[in-house]
Amino acid sequence: MSEEVKVFGAWGSPMSHRVELALRLKGIEYENIEEDLSNKSPLLLKYNPVHKKIPVLVHKGKPIAESMVILEYIDETWKHNPLLPQDPYERAMARFWAKFFEEKCLMQVWMTCCSKGSEQEKHMQEAMENLKTLETALQGKKFFGGEAIGLVDIACIVLAYWLELNLQVVGIVLIEEEKLPMLHQWAQELLNTSVVKESLPPRDKLLAIFKARKEASTNAA
Amino acid sequence: MSEEVKVFGAWGSPMSHRVELALRLKGIEYENIEEDLSNKSPLLLKYNPVHKKIPVLVHKGKPIAESMVILEYIDETWKHNPLLPQDPYERAMARFWAKFFEEKCLMQVWMTCCSKGSEQEKHMQEAMENLKTLETALQGKKFFGGEAIGLVDIACIVLAYWLELNLQVVGIVLIEEEKLPMLHQWAQELLNTSVVKESLPPRDKLLAIFKARKEASTNAA
Repeated sequence: MSEEVKVFGAWGSPMSHRVELALRLKGIEYENIEEDLSNKSPLLLKYNPVHKKIPVLVHKGKPIAESMVILEYIDETWKHNPLLPQDPYERAMARFWAKFFEEKCLMQVWMTCCSKGSEQEKHMQEAMENLKTLETALQGKKFFGGEAIGLVDIACIVLAYWLELNLQVVGIVLIEEEKLPMLHQWAQELLNTSVVKESLPPRDKLLAIFKARKEASTNAA
Repeated sequence: MSEEVKVFGAWGSPMSHRVELALRLKGIEYENIEEDLSNKSPLLLKYNPVHKKIPVLVHKGKPIAESMVILEYIDETWKHNPLLPQDPYERAMARFWAKFFEEKCLMQVWMTCCSKGSEQEKHMQEAMENLKTLETALQGKKFFGGEAIGLVDIACIVLAYWLELNLQVVGIVLIEEEKLPMLHQWAQELLNTSVVKESLPPRDKLLAIFKARKEASTNAA
C-alpha cells in the first residue's frame, strides 16, 4: 500500500461506495476505515472539520471530502481507466448530468420514499419527470460513460441500488421498463457488472435496515 | 471571432458574469447575447432545454449550461491563465470550497436579504457561521486562487458585489472588517481588480432594481 490510500466511510453508505467503486475501477488498493456514524472518530472530525461527514479520502496523508470532489481527484491522480471523457465538451456534459442528478433527482426520489399521501404523489411525479430527463443522456449508450462506467454512472448508482431498495420497501416501482426503459436497462447492466457486484453492500442487510426504518416511521406517525 | 464563442446571459445576472469574467481573464473574445428573462428566446430554450436558464456558453455551435460546469469547460479548453491550480489536491480543495460556497453560503446570504424578523436573524447567523468557515480558505492568500483570481473567486464574486448590494438595501452589513477580516479584504481586492471593475454591471443600475424589489415586497407585506 505504497500510495497510502485510505477511505473513511460506512459500509451501508452510497456516498462511501462512490469513492470505493472509483478506486476499484482504477485498481487502486485502499484501506477502508469503517466509521461509527453515531460516534464519529476524532480522525474523521480532523479530516473533515467543515462537514464532519463521510466519505473522506486520505491520500499520502492529505484528506479530501465530498464524494463528487473526491471522484474528480481520483480521476486526475490516477489517469488510467478514466472516469471522465478526454474531450472538454464531453467532460462538461458528464459534469452537467452528474449535477442534474445530484440536484434534481436524488432528493426527489428520496422524498418519494419518505413521504405519504398527496405529498408522496407530488414528489413521485417530480422524480419521474426528472428521471425522464436524466434518461435522455443514456440515448444510444450502455452506460452514461459510454461502453465503460464513468463519473455519472458512479454518481447515479445510489438510484439503481439504495433508492430502488428503499422504494421496494414502500411498495413503489419507479424505474419500470415501460416508463423508463433506458434507465431500467442501465440499472440492470450496472448492477450486473462484476466490479459493481463485488463492491455493493449486501442487499438483505440493507433491506433489513430500510424495513426497520419504515416500521419506526409508521409507528411514530 | 474565429473561435465562435457566444454567451447567452443577462446584464444583471451574477451567474452570467461568472462566465464573462472567466472568458475575460483568459482574454477570449466572445459575443454577448442579452436574453429577456421574461420572454426567453427560442435559441436559449434550444440550447438549455433542461433548465431553460442563463447562462449558456456556446462554443463552435455546442452549448454548455450551468455556470460552474462552464467555468471548468473554459479552463480545460483554454489552458492559459488557469482558473484551477495544476496540482490535483489543490484542484480538489478549490472544488470543495466552490461547492461549499454554492451549497452553504449563497442561499443563506440571499435569505438574509429576503426575510424579516426572527427568520432573518436565523438566516443571518447561519450565513455568518458559514462565511467564517469559507474565510479560512483565504488564510495567507490574496485571493482564493492565491495571487491570481481563480475558480473560487469567480464563484464567490456574487457575494462581494450582488449580495453585498442587496444587504445594503436592507441595511445589513455582513462582511465587516471586524467580523470577517479576510473576506472583507478579499472583497476589496477583488472589486479593485481592473478586469473585475470593467466587467461588473453598473452599481447604481443594480441598486435601483434591488431597491424597487424591496419596496415591492414591503408594500406586498
